[in-house]
Amino acid sequence: MNPHFAERTKSARRSVIRELLKLTEQPNIISFAGGLPDPATFPREFLARVAADEILNNPGKTLQYTTTEGKLPLREPLSRWFAEDGMKFPPDQIVITSASQQGLDLVAKVFLDPGDVVFVGLPTYIGAIQAFQAMQARLVGVPLEEDGMDLGKLAEAIRATRRAGLTPKFIYEVPDFQNPSGITWSEEKRRGLLEIARREDLVVVEDMPYRKLRYVGKPVPPLAALDEDGRVVVLFTFSKTLAAGLRLGALAGPKEIVEKVVTLKQATDLCTSSLTQRLAVRFFQEYDVEGHMEKICAHYRVKRDAMLAALERYMPKGEGIRWTKPEGGLFLWVALPEEIDTERMLLKAIEHKVAYVIGAPFFVDGGGHNTMRLSFSSATLEQIEEGIRRLGQVVAEELAAVRSPQQA
Amino acid sequence: MNPHFAERTKSARRSVIRELLKLTEQPNIISFAGGLPDPATFPREFLARVAADEILNNPGKTLQYTTTEGKLPLREPLSRWFAEDGMKFPPDQIVITSASQQGLDLVAKVFLDPGDVVFVGLPTYIGAIQAFQAMQARLVGVPLEEDGMDLGKLAEAIRATRRAGLTPKFIYEVPDFQNPSGITWSEEKRRGLLEIARREDLVVVEDMPYRKLRYVGKPVPPLAALDEDGRVVVLFTFSKTLAAGLRLGALAGPKEIVEKVVTLKQATDLCTSSLTQRLAVRFFQEYDVEGHMEKICAHYRVKRDAMLAALERYMPKGEGIRWTKPEGGLFLWVALPEEIDTERMLLKAIEHKVAYVIGAPFFVDGGGHNTMRLSFSSATLEQIEEGIRRLGQVVAEELAAVRSPQQA
Repeated sequence: MNPHFAERTKSARRSVIRELLKLTEQPNIISFAGGLPDPATFPREFLARVAADEILNNPGKTLQYTTTEGKLPLREPLSRWFAEDGMKFPPDQIVITSASQQGLDLVAKVFLDPGDVVFVGLPTYIGAIQAFQAMQARLVGVPLEEDGMDLGKLAEAIRATRRAGLTPKFIYEVPDFQNPSGITWSEEKRRGLLEIARREDLVVVEDMPYRKLRYVGKPVPPLAALDEDGRVVVLFTFSKTLAAGLRLGALAGPKEIVEKVVTLKQATDLCTSSLTQRLAVRFFQEYDVEGHMEKICAHYRVKRDAMLAALERYMPKGEGIRWTKPEGGLFLWVALPEEIDTERMLLKAIEHKVAYVIGAPFFVDGGGHNTMRLSFSSATLEQIEEGIRRLGQVVAEELAAVRSPQQA
Repeated sequence: MNPHFAERTKSARRSVIRELLKLTEQPNIISFAGGLPDPATFPREFLARVAADEILNNPGKTLQYTTTEGKLPLREPLSRWFAEDGMKFPPDQIVITSASQQGLDLVAKVFLDPGDVVFVGLPTYIGAIQAFQAMQARLVGVPLEEDGMDLGKLAEAIRATRRAGLTPKFIYEVPDFQNPSGITWSEEKRRGLLEIARREDLVVVEDMPYRKLRYVGKPVPPLAALDEDGRVVVLFTFSKTLAAGLRLGALAGPKEIVEKVVTLKQATDLCTSSLTQRLAVRFFQEYDVEGHMEKICAHYRVKRDAMLAALERYMPKGEGIRWTKPEGGLFLWVALPEEIDTERMLLKAIEHKVAYVIGAPFFVDGGGHNTMRLSFSSATLEQIEEGIRRLGQVVAEELAAVRSPQQA
């Protein structure tokens, strides 16, 4: 038997990070590698109670199939929640998805023919890279600066794409507290991005898994709120705000696009789980959603502060060593001098019982060998203090090693 | 804004049936149209209890992300359950999916480049048609006889495909109580199909949503149990055996194929809901699964018997009028004389307050205008009796109308 796979399958690769994560799962390792939300933030008493109630007393709505676009009593409060943030999507412009990874799969299916170009940040969320590559897109990376993409380079990349006879389809970004970099786009850059998208007639895919997790500073309007001509598609997930295990999210966008998304979602999974949708319906109906968000933010804020303080304390100082100071989300990003290869250094880190995620897989241009992602979501404050102390030592040792003449 | 969709999107259509179903949702209509399982078969007391217990006491396993391949404590009992049916898939050859529609999406992604050929029955399950067309496959229909595909025509179709320079990829079938026809393949035809697949080096996709729902007769071995060289991929779903709203199923197959499926599932949704998986884990651990299946079968058996008896009683007799006598599943299939167009007749049926699903959308060759699908899963025994009486009258009137000289 010799299965004849599709072209996309021949080149599909699993995330390197997943493989490296196995290394970091040894006992006593303090890991900043996993990007999982802290289960302490999931409202389990509430979910347990409403799950039992819904299944027992509302089985027709929880245990049976539901519509492909998702339950209206969930799309309605989502529409209002989005509106609080300046995004105007009536319920018929919202599709419930099996979390935002499915949103990525659906935008890829709806827009991408083989060879079509998607513009992404350097670095970019890996799940997006995988979803777009599965539809055989060509990904063009544009450097991220502290306040968002280098827009000059974006415009240049789009022109070069057209000159090469390729078809640009959309720009993908996580403008708030990006995974992996922790960067938030300024309003000026958001407007600049939309201006370029308008001029080039491109769709913008705005992925906002962390938008509700802001710990300091003032919210910047979403791209979808600044959008004047209906070209922004929003991906939202409940994974960080309710519970990741529900696999529940939403896609919102222009009506014409949303209709196509629903058509292709029908072929993808018929519908998202009725049960998990009903749990979210009850969450909006009965739970103190705003108080819950504040509680989650407070929970992560101290961890973020602790990690930034520890980095200040323990990381070697010097040229080429810097890290982002995210205003929200779960991640921060460390860049080391060019001589450092964080993949090679990971073995040393594991010897020192600390782990991170190497940066290179987040770069579609082969760069990022000297970068790493640190997650502050799951470790305790004590682990953050001790883990960053160990990491500082690892970096210092590695710097000494690569800079010593014997090693050169 | 002028979104530039992918080629697949331009031709994607939502199911006609969904649109027609809206017609049938008027009050007082007895509908045999929907294909939904009867919610009375879902063990809601059990599910309510374990859902609350799992969320409260096992939140790390229910509310957090899980692995892409799915929870091992679910793949293990599934492996044993499959083995009872002669199918030898160790847990590492099983992937948990978001029900079998996702299984269809994943086999389509793994195998199909645009223009590749899939062989399907005439008629075929619509969700499969949609999933394969979303990956731009060319679907070639092969007539179904009472005991399975016309294998001579299948072999001929494969030869013609190769002669035309096209690439055949796999054969798709629902060998037990097919949706829509209710047909079950004989063992002889199953062996014949595998023989052809072997000769032509094709994969076989065996979709078995109804396999556990056998009401009469002896089980015929699954294709996967007869397979000698690892070319059968099995799609299973809990939608009919536990609860459709969970969106839970499994794909099993040769190791090499399953690995590719896991890689592409990662890009599709990261993982299937941890919560719904845990409910199924507990179902296998604590519930009387065999007794539950017997109960479900008993529940549907009387409905099937009632519908067959009512058809015998009320349908006009005559050449060209026949229906299948399914040994399980949820559906039976009625063929009427060539002059009848069941889509046109549907309006008359709705006037008579009875509804069915037209057959044509299940045919990839444009045929089937004179056929219809009847589901006996959701109606009560009284509704079945009265609904089939009305349907018999509708058919009699339509026959009279098309055969009267005034109408000619």
